[in-house]
Amino acid sequence: MIKFFEKDPYSPIQYVYEISRILYKTKSPYQEILVVENPYFGRMLVLDGVVQFTEKDEFFYHEMLVHVAMHAHPEPKRVVVIGGGDGGAVREVMKHDCVEKLYFVEIDREVIETSKRFFPTVSCEIDNEKVEIKNMDGAEFIKNHKEEFDVVVVDSTDIIGFAKSLFTVEFFRAVRESLKEEGMFVTLSESLHFHRDMVVDVQKTMKLVFPVVDLYTAPIATYAGNWWTFSAASMKLDMREPRRSMVNGRRFYSEEIHRQCFLPEKLYDDLLNNRLDW
Amino acid sequence: MIKFFEKDPYSPIQYVYEISRILYKTKSPYQEILVVENPYFGRMLVLDGVVQFTEKDEFFYHEMLVHVAMHAHPEPKRVVVIGGGDGGAVREVMKHDCVEKLYFVEIDREVIETSKRFFPTVSCEIDNEKVEIKNMDGAEFIKNHKEEFDVVVVDSTDIIGFAKSLFTVEFFRAVRESLKEEGMFVTLSESLHFHRDMVVDVQKTMKLVFPVVDLYTAPIATYAGNWWTFSAASMKLDMREPRRSMVNGRRFYSEEIHRQCFLPEKLYDDLLNNRLDW
Repeated sequence: MIKFFEKDPYSPIQYVYEISRILYKTKSPYQEILVVENPYFGRMLVLDGVVQFTEKDEFFYHEMLVHVAMHAHPEPKRVVVIGGGDGGAVREVMKHDCVEKLYFVEIDREVIETSKRFFPTVSCEIDNEKVEIKNMDGAEFIKNHKEEFDVVVVDSTDIIGFAKSLFTVEFFRAVRESLKEEGMFVTLSESLHFHRDMVVDVQKTMKLVFPVVDLYTAPIATYAGNWWTFSAASMKLDMREPRRSMVNGRRFYSEEIHRQCFLPEKLYDDLLNNRLDW
Repeated sequence: MIKFFEKDPYSPIQYVYEISRILYKTKSPYQEILVVENPYFGRMLVLDGVVQFTEKDEFFYHEMLVHVAMHAHPEPKRVVVIGGGDGGAVREVMKHDCVEKLYFVEIDREVIETSKRFFPTVSCEIDNEKVEIKNMDGAEFIKNHKEEFDVVVVDSTDIIGFAKSLFTVEFFRAVRESLKEEGMFVTLSESLHFHRDMVVDVQKTMKLVFPVVDLYTAPIATYAGNWWTFSAASMKLDMREPRRSMVNGRRFYSEEIHRQCFLPEKLYDDLLNNRLDW
């Protein structure tokens, strides 16, 4: 058993995993890709030294990233997933039968290939005929689409390096313009424990662009700080209540979780107005 | 800067902290006590190699441990805290002006002395005149009190070694007998991510004894698995709604958090009936 020391520049706690096998290691034009096996978590995907997900518990993240907006929208037909080359977000979107078209925009095709090879339960919907893979920059893709999408999901790596372009006011404006009237947008926004400044920053940037902005959380064991946030925005619809019946195949997300996961109004308000004493 | 490798036998991820200073190290009859300083978390109390709390974020745990039962009870006057020698739980209980008497039962007086010396903002209410310190085994203390307490709080170390005696059916029976008719009991019960068997075990043991048993969670950054659970029980009153106005001096806990923190009914039911596929 060897030890893997996670290299997360944003975490005040370093996470160390036991590794029983190194299954794959390569360097794509964008990042170092590593697949390892841990006795508890099973297989794990590691990009540039940071754990992206584990076989055991990836569904917490992927379900919470996707299903809140997808259930808050009255009828999402045209959806975009940017990043998430593993296919976990794609799998969750495709549980919604109403989806007619999903653009899967992942700049690094080697992540997709790695996931197909080592994570079949995560990548299982990538080849669905409704899914169109675009190996390009997400910001570039979005710029060329107007009033076309119902839900846009960003499943990037941490807000650092090339992922930063997916958190700028310019990108958020392009997303807004790509959405239909009832459109919704959701993106990861780091940990409320460890990266509060980043959370607030993403929120404030979103508020410059979208009429409705909100914040919800989920407990993700392998992400630094764990109390993980998702920033959600829409053109007019509130996202705190599901508008549709629950899709099948959920393991954690539910109607009750949807209602509970949003920050209480006062805490949310205090967070954005810098009134928390922590 | 040196690295401190946490020695938590129950965690599939090992947590590593940078240590700028070792402030104190001793061995009591019960455990090894260590006080260290970390650039992000400030001072940290470590018992037998496991981080108990940090100056920066201890209030998440202490508030969530104490205030749910204390606000669900109509008027808690006589309260017991077992363990929690640092005084964090005592501090939170004493925010409730209705409290007339608090027995603070900590077997290891050296933890109390260490906290008084190194954690003044945590230990600040230990010398309150309403607080009576009992340096004895919590199970022994409880056995000798009948229908006397409004709220009993267990703030032990992990469910291992000598803390195990605070999670047996015998102990829970003694707690029940020590409570008044509207009495309430709350104890930590480990992480829903990493220690689900323990959570279920504590819950099932509680259900053998108490008419009302429930489970709520809070995000604690420094505890393995982070998605931390608290098991709560009472003689007759439901604990999901606060019955009293909020006390002053809270930093995280609120009326909304109280309502949100309990497991959704279906998830709770699936957990106890072994119907979760994770």
